[in-house]
Amino acid sequence: MSKMMKAAIFVEPNRIVLDDKPVPEVGPLDALLKITTTTICGTDVHILKGEYPVARGLTIGHEPVGVIEKLGSAVQGYREGQRVISGAITPSGHSAACLCGQHSQDGTGTKHGFKAMGGWRFGNTIDGAQAEYLLVPDAMTNLAPIPDGLTDEQVLMCPDIMSTGFSGAERGAVRIGDSVAVFAQGPIGLCATAGARLMGATTIIAVDSIPARLAIARKMGADHVVDFTQCDPVAEIMRLTDGRGVDVAIEALGRQETFSAALRVLRPGGTLSSLGVYSGDLTIPLDAFAAGLGDHTIATSLCPGGKERMGRLMDVIAAARLDTRPLVTHRFKLDDVEAAYDLFANQRDGVLKVAISV
Amino acid sequence: MSKMMKAAIFVEPNRIVLDDKPVPEVGPLDALLKITTTTICGTDVHILKGEYPVARGLTIGHEPVGVIEKLGSAVQGYREGQRVISGAITPSGHSAACLCGQHSQDGTGTKHGFKAMGGWRFGNTIDGAQAEYLLVPDAMTNLAPIPDGLTDEQVLMCPDIMSTGFSGAERGAVRIGDSVAVFAQGPIGLCATAGARLMGATTIIAVDSIPARLAIARKMGADHVVDFTQCDPVAEIMRLTDGRGVDVAIEALGRQETFSAALRVLRPGGTLSSLGVYSGDLTIPLDAFAAGLGDHTIATSLCPGGKERMGRLMDVIAAARLDTRPLVTHRFKLDDVEAAYDLFANQRDGVLKVAISV
Amino acid sequence: MSKMMKAAIFVEPNRIVLDDKPVPEVGPLDALLKITTTTICGTDVHILKGEYPVARGLTIGHEPVGVIEKLGSAVQGYREGQRVISGAITPSGHSAACLCGQHSQDGTGTKHGFKAMGGWRFGNTIDGAQAEYLLVPDAMTNLAPIPDGLTDEQVLMCPDIMSTGFSGAERGAVRIGDSVAVFAQGPIGLCATAGARLMGATTIIAVDSIPARLAIARKMGADHVVDFTQCDPVAEIMRLTDGRGVDVAIEALGRQETFSAALRVLRPGGTLSSLGVYSGDLTIPLDAFAAGLGDHTIATSLCPGGKERMGRLMDVIAAARLDTRPLVTHRFKLDDVEAAYDLFANQRDGVLKVAISV
Amino acid sequence: MSKMMKAAIFVEPNRIVLDDKPVPEVGPLDALLKITTTTICGTDVHILKGEYPVARGLTIGHEPVGVIEKLGSAVQGYREGQRVISGAITPSGHSAACLCGQHSQDGTGTKHGFKAMGGWRFGNTIDGAQAEYLLVPDAMTNLAPIPDGLTDEQVLMCPDIMSTGFSGAERGAVRIGDSVAVFAQGPIGLCATAGARLMGATTIIAVDSIPARLAIARKMGADHVVDFTQCDPVAEIMRLTDGRGVDVAIEALGRQETFSAALRVLRPGGTLSSLGVYSGDLTIPLDAFAAGLGDHTIATSLCPGGKERMGRLMDVIAAARLDTRPLVTHRFKLDDVEAAYDLFANQRDGVLKVAISV
Repeated sequence: MSKMMKAAIFVEPNRIVLDDKPVPEVGPLDALLKITTTTICGTDVHILKGEYPVARGLTIGHEPVGVIEKLGSAVQGYREGQRVISGAITPSGHSAACLCGQHSQDGTGTKHGFKAMGGWRFGNTIDGAQAEYLLVPDAMTNLAPIPDGLTDEQVLMCPDIMSTGFSGAERGAVRIGDSVAVFAQGPIGLCATAGARLMGATTIIAVDSIPARLAIARKMGADHVVDFTQCDPVAEIMRLTDGRGVDVAIEALGRQETFSAALRVLRPGGTLSSLGVYSGDLTIPLDAFAAGLGDHTIATSLCPGGKERMGRLMDVIAAARLDTRPLVTHRFKLDDVEAAYDLFANQRDGVLKVAISV
Repeated sequence: MSKMMKAAIFVEPNRIVLDDKPVPEVGPLDALLKITTTTICGTDVHILKGEYPVARGLTIGHEPVGVIEKLGSAVQGYREGQRVISGAITPSGHSAACLCGQHSQDGTGTKHGFKAMGGWRFGNTIDGAQAEYLLVPDAMTNLAPIPDGLTDEQVLMCPDIMSTGFSGAERGAVRIGDSVAVFAQGPIGLCATAGARLMGATTIIAVDSIPARLAIARKMGADHVVDFTQCDPVAEIMRLTDGRGVDVAIEALGRQETFSAALRVLRPGGTLSSLGVYSGDLTIPLDAFAAGLGDHTIATSLCPGGKERMGRLMDVIAAARLDTRPLVTHRFKLDDVEAAYDLFANQRDGVLKVAISV
Repeated sequence: MSKMMKAAIFVEPNRIVLDDKPVPEVGPLDALLKITTTTICGTDVHILKGEYPVARGLTIGHEPVGVIEKLGSAVQGYREGQRVISGAITPSGHSAACLCGQHSQDGTGTKHGFKAMGGWRFGNTIDGAQAEYLLVPDAMTNLAPIPDGLTDEQVLMCPDIMSTGFSGAERGAVRIGDSVAVFAQGPIGLCATAGARLMGATTIIAVDSIPARLAIARKMGADHVVDFTQCDPVAEIMRLTDGRGVDVAIEALGRQETFSAALRVLRPGGTLSSLGVYSGDLTIPLDAFAAGLGDHTIATSLCPGGKERMGRLMDVIAAARLDTRPLVTHRFKLDDVEAAYDLFANQRDGVLKVAISV
Repeated sequence: MSKMMKAAIFVEPNRIVLDDKPVPEVGPLDALLKITTTTICGTDVHILKGEYPVARGLTIGHEPVGVIEKLGSAVQGYREGQRVISGAITPSGHSAACLCGQHSQDGTGTKHGFKAMGGWRFGNTIDGAQAEYLLVPDAMTNLAPIPDGLTDEQVLMCPDIMSTGFSGAERGAVRIGDSVAVFAQGPIGLCATAGARLMGATTIIAVDSIPARLAIARKMGADHVVDFTQCDPVAEIMRLTDGRGVDVAIEALGRQETFSAALRVLRPGGTLSSLGVYSGDLTIPLDAFAAGLGDHTIATSLCPGGKERMGRLMDVIAAARLDTRPLVTHRFKLDDVEAAYDLFANQRDGVLKVAISV
């Protein structure tokens, strides 16, 4: 008889509940983690609301911090008891997509090796991290040891928020001296702001409407903050750049308004780096797009995963280049995960991210 | 009193007429060309129809082949009598856009040095090439000597069609072994097909409905041709790629249908390289875009110009890597330019491109 | 008791012999191939001569074409009886090097995941392909099915020669219209010539001294051939480029003279793409290097491996972009492998590559 | 009769003297600057010592800060009285090299448009900046207005030191989370350290022997400093990176020892970014180069110039991302330029850079 564990399970739309589930069996390439800390993502709220469909009975969550409980028979290079994280995206390493460097579109198991968003498995196609134990597939590709001296909360943003946010700056190919506008300063937008700063942008403009988020945006590296309820953000960004527009505009919300605004503030030849998850067809406004003749680039990205990425991000934390702890505004026990969802889904009490200790 | 010349002049919507105009004065950085051959572009037809606004009285045309008649006082490195071409796009070389390598968005004269489509001057903001004489600004940046042995018609596609078409493959970053779909096989699409072939794509799929164009597409390098009136081109391309989709999809028409289809045949992580000039807001279909999580790139481009580019393209012709003469289906004298417009604007008699000798 | 097979075994310097060895056991991530065709590489000759040290008793060879005999218990996506190749380089897919896209420097098993040349395992650190059976590690990363209709000899150059040669052009970032010089037209140099052609170079200059190789170089895409015994190749290349020099110079021999010559014919800002295996410290001549101020790039590469690479290369063959069969000048049975080594090591009878059928 | 000015003139080896010279005539594309501040570069010392040959009578210096005194007749976009800098490198903008984005190798006036180091004109092929007035060629490509509020000394490092140092990090393609070693912490090495920091490196190791320089290196962003007189720097860097080696090694001295050491600490697949000016043939040690099979890149660079570059660098200063004032250790009047050379050439009194006010 299997050992049992507690897990946050999707039962039906609007119901994620903490329930018992067997601790998973460990296959040859897997690792079993004992989760110590995890968190809830905006995507999990879409799942909760039934806006993003997953199988009933699935354990939710894709941001694991934990300890290796058991290693698969073919897994080498780790030891049980080691503190590790895994990215939200867990590529196999061997699909065609992985071999092309596009690990997030991992199509392992498909004929040609590419599958849109295929690298996202935790809490999507396999059981996730909001549980006492998590089975990590392709463990040798995905487990990243936590450097000594870093706490769980220090690395809790690495699996998704920080990796995604940074990819906004990276896909924008931010260069020293660039101007960058970041639309929306939720956790991912804040990390995009930090990423732009880390890559050398010298005019970083953060847009949001919540004063507390704009205040953190400054800490994360924004030179200017724009409250879109107080002004037209497009006009304000053009004013701040003296009419030039920005080299890179990062969309971190997933709405038509911010997508359009990002294109409108972009200089000819600039890049719109899109991080948002959109919920309907998107419109590209013709004028902002120079009718297709502006040498613009629109680049999307899905959270980069894999142990090498995770190691780099933890190095950023360890080297004190960024402290993401201000993003954790509330703390819960796994036993109270339903309350955590209630707070987070309703965005009450100024919540940015919750830490769930197990 | 100025010497006079004949020129194709935009009088008002639906009227481009051949009329007399003074031969231009040569400023210190200019060169005056005696045009020997030129052509009409689809953009000129938009101007004719009043769909793209230009000043009344402007000489139209941006594809010059000619002989240097006179050099500006500060121009060095050329001699009068030399056979040359200039790109359709004539960057200054010294704006911020140029110094960033984005010469087509040249904002010379603007505060910050970027202007959408600013590099396009001939037949847009200054007098163009459908005339006996053409004033080339920033001559040292733009005049490219024609290699010995090449005829006017051999290089006539270099200034715009070939430069634009190739940029479709280049902005798609086509790699050896890639699959590429090219939507529309007008002159630019045909050169995009040729560009994909030159860069090493091994599965090149050309889409159009005109059998003669599809036949030329095969000569230009297409491995497969798809007649969209005979099948659903998206389904057919997915069939031809065995369900995988293409690495790069090139849009060479400027319509919503082709833009959407290009995105639908793209594998996750692929690039949609857009060459078309769109006439209304564009819609990005959510599903084909993986809701913004597919690591897709949408890259637009405007015809690269400048003498170095022109030299490379003429090298391609001189090295017999491509012969664009099949694109020239009809020939006119400048005196008959109005008849040429009539034929070309109405796409009669299977016209692809006309050569206008002066 | 293990089943036995024949294998070409390194006994001691100057002795590679065909001998019996047990057919290997198949681990969970492995695949056992029944080899149908393989070949001998220049590197194998270095091993034979004791110039490159390997363990005594090792089976030599790293260019396998075969049929899947048995799959490891954790291997999915293949079936026994399938015709496949594997690259000479067999990355794991999960080391830090792999996750950075530098699969050839795979440091699986090392602390940080990078190891110089670590991806080269066959006939180097594990038993190789000159045998009746070959154990392929990390089979899901490395096995590439052979497209229907291609013979063994058509794909025999993919695992090493073609992958390495093409990487010479790729690391040189050859662009449409480039001038490229390729120093030495052995099998790898010939494929570098072909790679430069496939990527759009328009002036390709092949250097060697053997008329038969120069003749094949022309077939592979060279526009000019230079016999260095008949002229100073540097002077001749400068003459052929009209004094400009080349954009990319590819070194495909591994000697000081060719390395120096490659640098001397390079224009300022150009790239020296080095494929050779050098046997002593290399000297960079100061003048050719502009004292370090010429914006030159020197890029080395080791044969890219992995199934996605192999699939692309076989697509090049299947699409008739290149036919490497002219490189196979001699054919042997595995039983005669010692004679094959004798011919190849002594470069008798105009040998380029041998095919060894099993 | 021409107006006269004072200028630091190369008379013969070991003699640079302050003497009178006519104020230059202004051609149509030129601008005449009244110099307000300039400095002396290590290269100028090579000129002084006769190690780098220039014409006798030439005015030395390539780091100008000044005020526009007079604009050429064809120069637009500036006004007299404007405070500006120009890069040490003054590309034309219109040569083939410029149109390829390799402005420092500008071959204006040559047949093909590439010339090694051709963009360096001030104090090399035309009169330089250590004078009361400086003629800037191709003014529209090169003059960059100084942002309000920045002093001469704040921008004095932009024309050469900062542009060169940053290019060390840029040519190394430093990524977030990289390890970078910088060999030598003279003014350029210090700016390379700062550049690596600005681009997101998280382990930055600065090597020198002078405690004051190592102390500034820490301010510039180094995480670790290595005094090579106290330890073997290669062993120490391997220790600091826990045996892994660095992703990017920057050579900022121009010596064989530092070049070799940079290669020895580089991980497989890493980039050696070379800034040094070497004075003899360089040796690549075979073992550190993995015999040519390590996927290493060696990239050299010459100080990027042009107004867009200068604008970006001044933005870095204006945005308080870097303060280069600590590099200015001594101040002189132009009248005392000979004393300044004496101090600087003999590296007395801990001099890093001198500011010369005019």
